[in-house]
Amino acid sequence: MILISNDDGPASPGLHALIQELSSLEKVSFSIPERQRSGASMSITFHKPLRIRRLKIKGVNGYVISGSPVDAILMAFLKLLNEKPKIVVSGINIGDNTGLQDIYASGTVAAAIQASLMGIPALAFSMEIGEKFVFSAGKVPGNFIKAAKIARTIVEYVIENGLPENVDLLNVNFPFKLNRNTPVVVTWPAPTKYDNFVVERIDPRGKPYYWIWGRRLTMYPEGSDAHALFNLRAISITPLTIDLCTRKVKLDELVERVKASIL
Amino acid sequence: MILISNDDGPASPGLHALIQELSSLEKVSFSIPERQRSGASMSITFHKPLRIRRLKIKGVNGYVISGSPVDAILMAFLKLLNEKPKIVVSGINIGDNTGLQDIYASGTVAAAIQASLMGIPALAFSMEIGEKFVFSAGKVPGNFIKAAKIARTIVEYVIENGLPENVDLLNVNFPFKLNRNTPVVVTWPAPTKYDNFVVERIDPRGKPYYWIWGRRLTMYPEGSDAHALFNLRAISITPLTIDLCTRKVKLDELVERVKASIL
Repeated sequence: MILISNDDGPASPGLHALIQELSSLEKVSFSIPERQRSGASMSITFHKPLRIRRLKIKGVNGYVISGSPVDAILMAFLKLLNEKPKIVVSGINIGDNTGLQDIYASGTVAAAIQASLMGIPALAFSMEIGEKFVFSAGKVPGNFIKAAKIARTIVEYVIENGLPENVDLLNVNFPFKLNRNTPVVVTWPAPTKYDNFVVERIDPRGKPYYWIWGRRLTMYPEGSDAHALFNLRAISITPLTIDLCTRKVKLDELVERVKASIL
Repeated sequence: MILISNDDGPASPGLHALIQELSSLEKVSFSIPERQRSGASMSITFHKPLRIRRLKIKGVNGYVISGSPVDAILMAFLKLLNEKPKIVVSGINIGDNTGLQDIYASGTVAAAIQASLMGIPALAFSMEIGEKFVFSAGKVPGNFIKAAKIARTIVEYVIENGLPENVDLLNVNFPFKLNRNTPVVVTWPAPTKYDNFVVERIDPRGKPYYWIWGRRLTMYPEGSDAHALFNLRAISITPLTIDLCTRKVKLDELVERVKASIL
């Protein structure tokens, strides 16, 4: 069984494309947030209760959760599914998730990290999207269909082979245009994708308010996910580990100083 | 200059303790969310504007931001501070942040991760707290004062020596009771701290609603942060790296299969 999730909610054409494509491969279910939760990161809802709604997409039964992507994964694992999924697939996100800042803030990647925390191999799929691209309600654009077919290949590979040692998930980003000349590159996360700044505006009462924003950089370090996507127009496959951990760090002197400072 | 942040907002005694202690060491400022944002994780506010309010705590000037901990750090770096801080210190959080699940969801750690993303050494401090402990408004409990003095020692150490190679931040957890016999242990993050489950209840209309919850485990893997804190009653110092990255992963076969699957 494959569990699908996302952070864009039930109307996302990226979700519909994945469900359609993967349901011909395996039994599929989905558990997703009820509304767009981009930038939800790994937030969990403990301070209020959640609602669960059943929904059918492309003939596949799944669940819509009134919370974050991580809530959707927890609900699926702890309450909704009768069997442990072989793999969790998140996306296809509308907009890329490259660079550490975006990866950490992303709800799409968060759903995959949550699956990894629960010991299941996970894949996050995202697609670069032009600012001015307009979706037609109920229609899946051709490039999302293409991307979903490639996603299927990756899902099949991971079901067959598992993930490589020390890899917990693959973060895959598709360029907006996909064709037979599109390169495929294994990458690492660029530190940042934007030159961030704050925009100050004045409200009708004369008080300032602020927008955090950023200009996308034009060149990225070679080998990085953003370089692959934006500079090479390639499909970027980034193996990620989630343990945040550097073992065997020497901190003896600090430990001694801390011990001495306890009153 | 030291920048202080947190995810508990301006009334937190852990914040007040840190400001008091660190302002005798260095010039200090703070940038914090306006309300409790526990579990905010690395979320960033792009979809609505933010407000900034000035506030003085213990004679120190700082800023209160109508957003997440990451927003508070971004605002400080991009707009509010006139100089780059030497170090960013987040906390002292009310409640521990041990185990990967909590670390990823934590706003306290997120503020520190955000500082690391911007190239500044960072420390996250959290204190285990009993469920039934009641704070007195405007008063900092004695154990928070003790913890802040230990935090000061760690801040001094990192300002002097920097962080060890490949370490981006230290995640420090204090047990509720601190005394001269409290051990100090360098740890790695436990995978999980809870046995999670879902509680189902019925609302007055007869419809179900759900709570994600968990029972804290009683034993943790030796060497982990949760083991140090709950099994040894020790101060846990966890060096973290934020690059999520396993380089040199062999994925040649996958790349070939993906290439072949592009239509």
